[in-house]
Amino acid sequence: MKIQGRHTRTIWQEPDGAIGIIDQTLLPHRFATVKLQTLEDVAHAISSMQVRGAPLIGAAAAYGMCLALRADASDEHLERAYATLLATRPTAINLKWALDEMLAVVRNRPREERLPTAWRRAAEIADEDVAINQAIGRHGCALIEAAAARKKPGERVNVLTHCNAGWLATVDWGTALAPVYTAHDKGIALHVWADETRPRNQGAALTAWELGQHGVPHTVIPDNTGGHLMQHGLVDLVIVGTDRVTATGDVCNKIGTYLKALAAHDNGVPFYVGLPSPTIDFTVSDGIAEIPIEQRGADEVATMTGRTADGRIETVRIVPDGSAVANYAFDVTPARLVTGLITERGVLPPARGALAQAFPERLTRSDQPRSVAR
Amino acid sequence: MKIQGRHTRTIWQEPDGAIGIIDQTLLPHRFATVKLQTLEDVAHAISSMQVRGAPLIGAAAAYGMCLALRADASDEHLERAYATLLATRPTAINLKWALDEMLAVVRNRPREERLPTAWRRAAEIADEDVAINQAIGRHGCALIEAAAARKKPGERVNVLTHCNAGWLATVDWGTALAPVYTAHDKGIALHVWADETRPRNQGAALTAWELGQHGVPHTVIPDNTGGHLMQHGLVDLVIVGTDRVTATGDVCNKIGTYLKALAAHDNGVPFYVGLPSPTIDFTVSDGIAEIPIEQRGADEVATMTGRTADGRIETVRIVPDGSAVANYAFDVTPARLVTGLITERGVLPPARGALAQAFPERLTRSDQPRSVAR
Repeated sequence: MKIQGRHTRTIWQEPDGAIGIIDQTLLPHRFATVKLQTLEDVAHAISSMQVRGAPLIGAAAAYGMCLALRADASDEHLERAYATLLATRPTAINLKWALDEMLAVVRNRPREERLPTAWRRAAEIADEDVAINQAIGRHGCALIEAAAARKKPGERVNVLTHCNAGWLATVDWGTALAPVYTAHDKGIALHVWADETRPRNQGAALTAWELGQHGVPHTVIPDNTGGHLMQHGLVDLVIVGTDRVTATGDVCNKIGTYLKALAAHDNGVPFYVGLPSPTIDFTVSDGIAEIPIEQRGADEVATMTGRTADGRIETVRIVPDGSAVANYAFDVTPARLVTGLITERGVLPPARGALAQAFPERLTRSDQPRSVAR
Repeated sequence: MKIQGRHTRTIWQEPDGAIGIIDQTLLPHRFATVKLQTLEDVAHAISSMQVRGAPLIGAAAAYGMCLALRADASDEHLERAYATLLATRPTAINLKWALDEMLAVVRNRPREERLPTAWRRAAEIADEDVAINQAIGRHGCALIEAAAARKKPGERVNVLTHCNAGWLATVDWGTALAPVYTAHDKGIALHVWADETRPRNQGAALTAWELGQHGVPHTVIPDNTGGHLMQHGLVDLVIVGTDRVTATGDVCNKIGTYLKALAAHDNGVPFYVGLPSPTIDFTVSDGIAEIPIEQRGADEVATMTGRTADGRIETVRIVPDGSAVANYAFDVTPARLVTGLITERGVLPPARGALAQAFPERLTRSDQPRSVAR
């Protein structure tokens, strides 16, 4: 999508073989790019959330394997790189998916072929992500068009989203926001309610910024607001992204997503999830019981970083000294609250049969469901 | 309750006839008191939220009428004071209740008697609030004790609360937190999950601070977290305050309360509301359709104030320039999601009959329900 009118991806290969990224921790106040030269650089970029969003984490990890192989193409180093990158974030399944893809293509090759093979597959993973998201955009756009057809003349379609599942969370286009960009580019009048998304404020910092850069009308709201808006008919549909979807359609996403799904259900507002198929984990059935929920540092809750009136970036503490803080990064929305999963192969019901039927090739791979593996 | 070991109320009369308050906009980083000398001082203190919380707003408005009468005890000025104070905040019904009380006692008196009468009634309103909250504490404590009896040995009762309905929101003791303080003082092992409560962070800034000052174990969490905690059995009961309860038991409270009520309902967690009876508005039946929801300034969402590492109080902007912001201050939780209303006369079901039966004297006053008024 566009930054200051210029088309940009979130990750790219530099001429010198380094990997370029946008440092997303500095947005929305500063736009800066970073060059990653080593495996450790990539691991740090993922764990510190310079890159974040399940699909982008997957692409970054794939490029991280390339940088690891560039330094040392041995089996030992390959395994170390896999383990190092896998440990950076526990919840997003795309990370493991991308690492498994990379391992599968290089593992049985001679050392000298490993690096070029890895570069090729990493670039494919990035390009595939873009193509997948464009397809999600087409399928989701039809939902927005249908909502637009139900509005009175002059009314906009109101989409509520949580966290950032826009192009910054992917290589390009986004998952939840791909339908929004597609509809906006087609000239459909829409408006996005962007949850600020505490504690890291990805909605206020990233979603608002990228929607603004692309010219999409939007309003930032505290996370507490969505239920009230839905009670008053001010939300036509909810679209969120996800870090992992179970074989049964449970949706793990940024903490607070479950609360919005409850409110949507209580008010008859359709609740959709945009996701590329690598986000589906066919090995997990019960999202609440089985998906590990990352707990992050207290400072993300206890402090807030922003721009002062005179333009400095400053971090302020907002919790009293001595108060404990908890920071669960994700929650799980049960499939029963989900209207549909917007995938690259269409809008699917959140159910085992529908997912297995749409992605049969995933059942023959290492991540096949346990019932098949037994 | 206690500040640095010393018993303190949130509002008091100074020897010179001024009114003393705690400037709650400076907490938790600075404890400072302010002297209010005039009607305008009180109106500013309420609208700028130096004092906030429905019961404290009521007490402050009562004292505001005293300061107005001190300057000018004429009918004209009395009416102007009533209108000025009523306009400071639109949602909390205690404000109107206290102003009506004050008007009723001074209106038909000679001018020279008005001020002493007003001082007397304002002090009574403050003392009544304390007595009411102590009763709420006793009734609510029984619920916490019952939850404690169901815990395994060594386990604490986990109470989740939203916003600040602690002693800082009242004259003393609090509404939602009165049961917590009462149970804690009785030696019951409990722990409070304090929602940070965006956008003004009253949970992180005020609830955490006052619980810490009184020695109650607590953890600050983003507003997004409660649903996840309830899914995992980490919340035994929710207790919140309210700014207005309808005759039918709908609960208007800080924005986001409705989302917690939905999560509690979905997970079988009891959801209680602590309230003094002046918070009941017998003239309103449908909370969602009838209660006006205050919209406040964008800066409360777009900026955040806190303490820098070197101890300065600084405000930082967290939303991109050019992004719109919406700031609805309250939402309405339908009675069907409320387990019980903890009042000074016991724990009542959220239903018209129960409320009318418990507070029959309210039905014979100006705020009687419309069906009776007709």
